Amino acid sequence: MTHTEDEGLSAVLERVQTGVEAFDELVMGGLPRGRATVVGGSPGSGKTVFATQFLAHGIHLGEAGVFVTFEESPKEVEANMAGFGWDIGRWVREKRLAFVDASPRADESLVLGDFDLSGLLARILHAAEQVSARRVVLDSLAQLFDHFIAEPNILRRELFRISSRLRRAGLTVLMTAERNNEYGEITRHRMEEFVADNVVLLRNVLEREKRRRTIEVLKMRGSHHVEGEAPFTLVGGRGIVAVPLSSLRLEQESSTKR
Amino acid sequence: MTHTEDEGLSAVLERVQTGVEAFDELVMGGLPRGRATVVGGSPGSGKTVFATQFLAHGIHLGEAGVFVTFEESPKEVEANMAGFGWDIGRWVREKRLAFVDASPRADESLVLGDFDLSGLLARILHAAEQVSARRVVLDSLAQLFDHFIAEPNILRRELFRISSRLRRAGLTVLMTAERNNEYGEITRHRMEEFVADNVVLLRNVLEREKRRRTIEVLKMRGSHHVEGEAPFTLVGGRGIVAVPLSSLRLEQESSTKR
Amino acid sequence: MTHTEDEGLSAVLERVQTGVEAFDELVMGGLPRGRATVVGGSPGSGKTVFATQFLAHGIHLGEAGVFVTFEESPKEVEANMAGFGWDIGRWVREKRLAFVDASPRADESLVLGDFDLSGLLARILHAAEQVSARRVVLDSLAQLFDHFIAEPNILRRELFRISSRLRRAGLTVLMTAERNNEYGEITRHRMEEFVADNVVLLRNVLEREKRRRTIEVLKMRGSHHVEGEAPFTLVGGRGIVAVPLSSLRLEQESSTKR
Amino acid sequence: MTHTEDEGLSAVLERVQTGVEAFDELVMGGLPRGRATVVGGSPGSGKTVFATQFLAHGIHLGEAGVFVTFEESPKEVEANMAGFGWDIGRWVREKRLAFVDASPRADESLVLGDFDLSGLLARILHAAEQVSARRVVLDSLAQLFDHFIAEPNILRRELFRISSRLRRAGLTVLMTAERNNEYGEITRHRMEEFVADNVVLLRNVLEREKRRRTIEVLKMRGSHHVEGEAPFTLVGGRGIVAVPLSSLRLEQESSTKR
Amino acid sequence: MTHTEDEGLSAVLERVQTGVEAFDELVMGGLPRGRATVVGGSPGSGKTVFATQFLAHGIHLGEAGVFVTFEESPKEVEANMAGFGWDIGRWVREKRLAFVDASPRADESLVLGDFDLSGLLARILHAAEQVSARRVVLDSLAQLFDHFIAEPNILRRELFRISSRLRRAGLTVLMTAERNNEYGEITRHRMEEFVADNVVLLRNVLEREKRRRTIEVLKMRGSHHVEGEAPFTLVGGRGIVAVPLSSLRLEQESSTKR
Amino acid sequence: MTHTEDEGLSAVLERVQTGVEAFDELVMGGLPRGRATVVGGSPGSGKTVFATQFLAHGIHLGEAGVFVTFEESPKEVEANMAGFGWDIGRWVREKRLAFVDASPRADESLVLGDFDLSGLLARILHAAEQVSARRVVLDSLAQLFDHFIAEPNILRRELFRISSRLRRAGLTVLMTAERNNEYGEITRHRMEEFVADNVVLLRNVLEREKRRRTIEVLKMRGSHHVEGEAPFTLVGGRGIVAVPLSSLRLEQESSTKR
Ligand SMILES: Nc1ncnc2c1ncn2[C@@H]1O[C@H](COP(=O)(O)OP(=O)(O)OP(=O)(O)O)[C@@H](O)[C@H]1O
Ligand SMILES: Nc1ncnc2c1ncn2[C@@H]1O[C@H](COP(=O)(O)OP(=O)(O)OP(=O)(O)O)[C@@H](O)[C@H]1O
Ligand SMILES: Nc1ncnc2c1ncn2[C@@H]1O[C@H](COP(=O)(O)OP(=O)(O)OP(=O)(O)O)[C@@H](O)[C@H]1O
Ligand SMILES: Nc1ncnc2c1ncn2[C@@H]1O[C@H](COP(=O)(O)OP(=O)(O)OP(=O)(O)O)[C@@H](O)[C@H]1O
Ligand SMILES: Nc1ncnc2c1ncn2[C@@H]1O[C@H](COP(=O)(O)OP(=O)(O)OP(=O)(O)O)[C@@H](O)[C@H]1O
Ligand SMILES: Nc1ncnc2c1ncn2[C@@H]1O[C@H](COP(=O)(O)OP(=O)(O)OP(=O)(O)O)[C@@H](O)[C@H]1O
Ligand SMILES: [Mg+2]
Ligand SMILES: [Mg+2]
Ligand SMILES: [Mg+2]
Ligand SMILES: [Mg+2]
Ligand SMILES: [Mg+2]
Ligand SMILES: [Mg+2]
Repeated sequence: MTHTEDEGLSAVLERVQTGVEAFDELVMGGLPRGRATVVGGSPGSGKTVFATQFLAHGIHLGEAGVFVTFEESPKEVEANMAGFGWDIGRWVREKRLAFVDASPRADESLVLGDFDLSGLLARILHAAEQVSARRVVLDSLAQLFDHFIAEPNILRRELFRISSRLRRAGLTVLMTAERNNEYGEITRHRMEEFVADNVVLLRNVLEREKRRRTIEVLKMRGSHHVEGEAPFTLVGGRGIVAVPLSSLRLEQESSTKR
Repeated sequence: MTHTEDEGLSAVLERVQTGVEAFDELVMGGLPRGRATVVGGSPGSGKTVFATQFLAHGIHLGEAGVFVTFEESPKEVEANMAGFGWDIGRWVREKRLAFVDASPRADESLVLGDFDLSGLLARILHAAEQVSARRVVLDSLAQLFDHFIAEPNILRRELFRISSRLRRAGLTVLMTAERNNEYGEITRHRMEEFVADNVVLLRNVLEREKRRRTIEVLKMRGSHHVEGEAPFTLVGGRGIVAVPLSSLRLEQESSTKR
Repeated sequence: MTHTEDEGLSAVLERVQTGVEAFDELVMGGLPRGRATVVGGSPGSGKTVFATQFLAHGIHLGEAGVFVTFEESPKEVEANMAGFGWDIGRWVREKRLAFVDASPRADESLVLGDFDLSGLLARILHAAEQVSARRVVLDSLAQLFDHFIAEPNILRRELFRISSRLRRAGLTVLMTAERNNEYGEITRHRMEEFVADNVVLLRNVLEREKRRRTIEVLKMRGSHHVEGEAPFTLVGGRGIVAVPLSSLRLEQESSTKR
Repeated sequence: MTHTEDEGLSAVLERVQTGVEAFDELVMGGLPRGRATVVGGSPGSGKTVFATQFLAHGIHLGEAGVFVTFEESPKEVEANMAGFGWDIGRWVREKRLAFVDASPRADESLVLGDFDLSGLLARILHAAEQVSARRVVLDSLAQLFDHFIAEPNILRRELFRISSRLRRAGLTVLMTAERNNEYGEITRHRMEEFVADNVVLLRNVLEREKRRRTIEVLKMRGSHHVEGEAPFTLVGGRGIVAVPLSSLRLEQESSTKR
Repeated sequence: MTHTEDEGLSAVLERVQTGVEAFDELVMGGLPRGRATVVGGSPGSGKTVFATQFLAHGIHLGEAGVFVTFEESPKEVEANMAGFGWDIGRWVREKRLAFVDASPRADESLVLGDFDLSGLLARILHAAEQVSARRVVLDSLAQLFDHFIAEPNILRRELFRISSRLRRAGLTVLMTAERNNEYGEITRHRMEEFVADNVVLLRNVLEREKRRRTIEVLKMRGSHHVEGEAPFTLVGGRGIVAVPLSSLRLEQESSTKR
Repeated sequence: MTHTEDEGLSAVLERVQTGVEAFDELVMGGLPRGRATVVGGSPGSGKTVFATQFLAHGIHLGEAGVFVTFEESPKEVEANMAGFGWDIGRWVREKRLAFVDASPRADESLVLGDFDLSGLLARILHAAEQVSARRVVLDSLAQLFDHFIAEPNILRRELFRISSRLRRAGLTVLMTAERNNEYGEITRHRMEEFVADNVVLLRNVLEREKRRRTIEVLKMRGSHHVEGEAPFTLVGGRGIVAVPLSSLRLEQESSTKR
């Protein structure tokens, strides 16, 4: 099913549950339907887990999904996510999930100076149609962006072009982006966080020889959201488990009121 | 209505209320009429909210506006700002607000090495004439600037050219600019804050897992203004709500006197 | 009136009062006559106010001036400085001040790869002759410098060429320069502070949500001067008002003696 | 023996013991079989020791290995690792280890603008076949990467191409990468840690004139692992000796539970 | 008088008093005769004062000098140094000092892509011959260096070429160099301090709104010297007045002994 | 005498005493014979002293040496090292030391875009043969490296080529490298410390106006070594005098055991 951009936008933003319960609480029920969200994080911060959990929960609710993978192959995503209890292979067989494999292949001839973005968009839209997808994940944009690293004006336009074309097809989009460090300078290409409607940050900070993971909504256009970092853990058989808002609220509220 | 640059400038600077009450107090009643103000901030810091509130308040006072959008489409701006109680669709229908849509389109052919600035200026002036606009918002300049990122001398001239042409048409101009971090190095293109007459900074600082939002007038040519940061919150149905000057004054005065 | 470089330089440096009383105290009575001084500062730090006060005080003492403006138009400078009690329009009419307008114009055709420095010098010298100027302000050099940003050797020569040609005409020169941050790396083009005879720094530092303004003489070739930062405020109807030396002296002396 | 990618990935990740006992405890028994792991570290941090210990333990368990050396010659590796008790020469003679020597030679003609990656891959696969290898080490990728330093998009693809081709041959891959400093910015080419399935960091930190060595699993796709840094020492006759998990667990668990 | 390089170097390094008494104490009596010393410092740190004092003291001791000026004109140097009690004009008339004026001239045609170093060397050697000079100052090298800013290998060779040619003529050379900040990264061109035989650093540090000046011998090839910073002041009628070693010794020795 | 690479490497690493007694204690008796060691340090940190002491001690033990100088001329090295009691002139006359003078000459024609590395290697090998050298010093590599500053892949190969060719001739190689600051980023070309077998760091840190010198073995492939910084002083008539291990051991051991 596809609905037009106009009606969707003039109404109050409908919510798409991510499956990370405590996170949905932070954002008034979920990510805005028909919008694009960038999830930025350092290596291993949980971007792919978050993206898959978003698709998994959609499938649980009857919303099919498309997983566009630029790095891991579909088989690898399947294997890597198996430990969280998600049976990706079955979803694909049941036509509730479709993969678009944009990962580099060992046998692939090197194509310099060219990146066929229109072809990619067509493949994604075709896949979405096959399974009547409502959700789409692009994990991650870095390969595409490295291509335009010296041309920020092109990069900015391409980012718009992708996400707006997908949204016109009624899809709720989640894109992952690479961040080189936990604080300070934002993403590697320094642009995604301005262009996206919604930005979620995953951090994995080293503090006195220990790691601490947090999730934060940096911005969400058109919507109130709880601000600041919420701690989470990656739990086998479940995925991202964030600290529920009720535990955070006392602190949090005192902070938004100040 | 258009008045000439000469008479407007030799008089004392007339004020244009922004609609952010506590902010107007900081700047002697509002932004200088017929001038350009740059509002710089990190992703989600509230640039678009501030810009829209400025237009909304103008409309409330009978001053029509033009919203030039380089990123979000008009429909998206409308949806994103609805939660603050602003009925942008109605304003457009009532010809109190006109959009100039300079956002990249998915179907748009990529034009490299060319950016039609004169065409854009003509569209803005045409729109301003249609609604007899007194206020204009450009949100944000980044796309334009990325185009000239390796040519700071061109960028500097273009920035002058845009804002001076609009001001000649009697418009009060508000332009948003991207800042990569809250303190330290100024804007992404490192130039806007020198070239603009007025610079307002929106910050969204992460401090011990909490966020703190502040607004500051960095400079206002030709006008006294209260200095330093004032805390604010983004409130559904209202927009930016800053702490009134009376609450800040005791501290503030002790500081400007030192 | 013009006097030759030779006699002027072999004598003790004659002083030119700036009109900022407490500042003149720091520099043995004023800026060295027939020399060039660079005033560096961040956006809104008071560079244009200082430059105008320097011209205003000259006019008050019977020394005509030339204001070369690269950014604000003459009308804008006039309006922006009105609040400090300076009637620039009258001075122009009375031929005690002449403007050279080198600001970019909206209708101006873009000239790439060329910057007519000789033409500019001729215009300045002509204006100085018209009003028999003794003082000249260039506010700011950034546009010129951005032009040569990739060629530091050219930039260095041009800076010499401008200031030495003006000084040969017996003019005392004040040039403003952009600084991106208050401490650390010096000016944007990293060169002005070495090349100039005199360097004055204006700072506007954010400390715990408050701003603090200071003025400092970084160097003054051929002259003793008080060292370190002196606090100042921008006062309507007066301009820059620095803390008098008598208040600073006790601290200050203990420091220069150590 | 070679098994296909598909069956290997859909099953639970099989483990390959590294021979660093306390490390294997951190990663649920070892590195995932059939996957590529990047081991990043500063000069002398122990990358080559870790890589050799991984091969040595394989040989101990009956799994032959290939050592692709880009820097030290095979003879040098042999000599450098002798002190840890590993008799590399014997393994080579017994056909339990094969070297691929990709180190630059003094007599080698300089080949600019060309790097024969396909030839290298063929040599590695051939060597793996000769000894029926199950493990392969590439020490280090830096020479290859310096070749593509200005083309991050090519670099990203090549990294995929190498590791995916080797994994298709059923090999468990360990690649070393250079890090310029112990914390902050990640690897020298800023990409390896995103692209690899598994990232292990070796640190050698200078603290008040003393050195402290630690090992950390930054990420391991598809697998739980203990987080944070574990101290280790380099011990003659043994190699890397890390602090066993039992000693770390109390602290560690309190941290992952928070 | 000229003596050959060979005899000068095989003997113990002869000393050339600088005229800064406390400094000569730090360096076993003075700068090594027939060697080149780089004096690095930020704007206004006292580089030109130190260089002139070095020439003035030579003249006082009967050693003529050459002052090669790349920035200030000879007349300006004369005026700027007058306040320290040095009558440069008289020295020139008495043929005890010769100027080589390499400063850019306002009427000089811009010569891009070419810098006539051989011509400059010839002029310096000619001037040295005219006055039988024993000391030569080059203030400062920055203009020359900016010319080769993108070619570090050329810059390194040119630096050698200049200083070795002058030393072959029996001259003791003092060259000034620009440093952008007081600590951290060394000189602007990042090379002078490695290439020079001797490096002296002048600092002018801002500490809590006050300035502190120090002089330090960073290195002196072939000679012992006292290490660490010594405070100094710039005193009218005298020049650089450093704190005598006797006052510093107690501290200093305890530090070199540790 | 020359022995082949193979036999040298398969045996336990033979040691070459450096003449810095306390240092040799840190590295199990000396530098590994037939290997290349990079000695990195800031200007004046003692690189040339360390290199010469290494050659001096060799000569004392009957091992002739070659000194390849890229900066100071042989005469200058001789003069500069005389104060440490080393009679370089005599060694040269006695054919126990040979110089290869690769320093730039004032009369040398500028050769752009070409660096004759093969010619240099031939000259070094010839000199080594003349005196039957066992040790060779290259002081410093910076000139060579600046030549390839924009081509890290070439630089990496050249570094291998030089050191491996020299080692094939049975020489123990010591190369000096420039470091811009004492901690943080490693060498100027960011590569030497990865490529070399052994890295020794000399530091000269400014702490509260005093200098502190330390020596540290950053890495030594194939060999245990004491870790962390050891303080040293430069002593006339002796050279580098480091604090003996016995004084450091208590601290040191407690640290390597942790
Ligand atoms: N209805 C609402 N109620 C409260 N807060 C809201 C509401 N809608 C949006 N916000 C807040 O406003 C933020 C977005 O503000 P805005 O769009 O003005 O930021 P921006 O500075 O323009 O960012 P960008 O650089 O991404 O354009 C959201 O991240 C959210 O925190
Ligand atoms: N009438 C006034 N009374 C008090 N303060 C004023 C008045 N007019 C301007 N100011 C102050 O002066 C500041 C502007 O100073 P000025 O224009 O000299 O800055 P600048 O350093 O030239 O900045 P830029 O780099 O933007 O040109 C304003 O930001 C404001 O704080
Ligand atoms: N026999 C030994 N006993 C103890 N420690 C040793 C022994 N041999 C080497 N080492 C230690 O191992 C270090 C070298 O480790 P390794 O070669 O693995 O480092 P690396 O990370 O590969 O460095 P590079 O980037 O230079 O290749 C030496 O610096 C030394 O401290
Ligand atoms: N079954 C599991 N149980 C618990 N934690 C797991 C499990 N599988 C993976 N993890 C954790 O998840 C991390 C990987 O998360 P994910 O792949 O989402 O990171 P990422 O942000 O996508 O990283 P990259 O930038 O490398 O793609 C692993 O490093 C590991 O810590
Ligand atoms: N007569 C004097 N009495 C005391 N101090 C003076 C006198 N003349 C100059 N000074 C001081 O000397 C400083 C200038 O020193 P000098 O010209 O040597 O600096 P510099 O390092 O050469 O700077 P630049 O990089 O600008 O050439 C002045 O800033 C001033 O503080
Ligand atoms: N006779 C001596 N007695 C004591 N110390 C001396 C003596 N000669 C030189 N020194 C010290 O040695 C230092 C020079 O050491 P050296 O030439 O080895 O440094 P370097 O690291 O090679 O520097 P560069 O990068 O400039 O080549 C001098 O700065 C001085 O402090
Ligand atoms: Mg991922
Ligand atoms: Mg916005
Ligand atoms: Mg200004
Ligand atoms: Mg290694
Ligand atoms: Mg000077
Ligand atoms: Mg040296």
